[in-house]
Amino acid sequence: MFDDLPSLVRLLRGLQQVPYLASKNIYRVASHFLNMDQARLKQFCEMLLEVRNNIIHCSNCFALCEANRDCPYCSSSRRDQGIICVVETWQELLVIEKTGGYGGVYHVLGGAICPLDGVGPENLTIEQLIMRIDDSVKEVILATNQTPEGEATASYIASKLKAKSVLISCLARGIPVGSSLEYMDRITVYKALSERRPF
Amino acid sequence: MFDDLPSLVRLLRGLQQVPYLASKNIYRVASHFLNMDQARLKQFCEMLLEVRNNIIHCSNCFALCEANRDCPYCSSSRRDQGIICVVETWQELLVIEKTGGYGGVYHVLGGAICPLDGVGPENLTIEQLIMRIDDSVKEVILATNQTPEGEATASYIASKLKAKSVLISCLARGIPVGSSLEYMDRITVYKALSERRPF
Repeated sequence: MFDDLPSLVRLLRGLQQVPYLASKNIYRVASHFLNMDQARLKQFCEMLLEVRNNIIHCSNCFALCEANRDCPYCSSSRRDQGIICVVETWQELLVIEKTGGYGGVYHVLGGAICPLDGVGPENLTIEQLIMRIDDSVKEVILATNQTPEGEATASYIASKLKAKSVLISCLARGIPVGSSLEYMDRITVYKALSERRPF
Repeated sequence: MFDDLPSLVRLLRGLQQVPYLASKNIYRVASHFLNMDQARLKQFCEMLLEVRNNIIHCSNCFALCEANRDCPYCSSSRRDQGIICVVETWQELLVIEKTGGYGGVYHVLGGAICPLDGVGPENLTIEQLIMRIDDSVKEVILATNQTPEGEATASYIASKLKAKSVLISCLARGIPVGSSLEYMDRITVYKALSERRPF
């Protein structure tokens, strides 16, 4: 279809590697870049490269942080350094931060164990998490996703932490706020029922 | 929320200008760029800038074309240069190309008339379209979108072309293939009914 437009094919191939640009949208995104004037596109590229340079992963919790500053979580005196919430990626950290109801610190694993994708425990920051757990840590909250991979990862971490005297907890499972039972899948309802709590 | 991460704020602001990166996805796209290694991100930026340089708008039909080549549509001897399909943007051109059932050429308007957004006929390539219509052109197909703006643009072009002895047509309106009447809006059903054709 684009035999006469090799540059366009190059652009589309490049954009295809960016997540969330599904097939219909990619043409519109491509148009956006092609219609941008040269100077603004250059600015955009410089911004990407500079930001990539300035943002690093904290060497303690592996959340994103500014290269020349302390980690906003690990270095905060307002946060309880004794509670560590373990999440798969930085996006999940944001979701928990947005609730406004968490005052502890984090540990970003960098994904979940998934042998089919070639991701084993050694590819995640599990070793570093275990090293972090000393006597000052009271609780580890396993907030991995409720997927087979996320649950396997949580189980693996829990088994590794058994030797340490730390409370291990996980997120409550149940009916999401605002939803009706009728439209819930049966496993969620089963979990909500078996893990019911006093009113 | 990102007071401690000014570089990240910069990245998010930059990405917000790219269409189709809705609020939930933008963090994942940001992560993608932050996790890319420096060399690959540099390659991606170079690709963007080079492609932006190499792709221009054809000066006749305003479709995208390679800077150092002829327009694949206007210069094609296999295409009927006497039929011009008028579309709003390059994305709609692609949609028509994909049907595989069109053998004429195109004219890309660059949008639709929309006074609220400050887009008048002078901001589109309507003047250039009218200049293109000479005796060799038999038919102009108005394939603007079925939106108020698209229909207004089609009406405007039709009124401008009235003086020229050229057939003006538009896309058929009706029930989309594969859909049932029950779920159609009443205006579509009305159009399909009033514009019915012999079986």
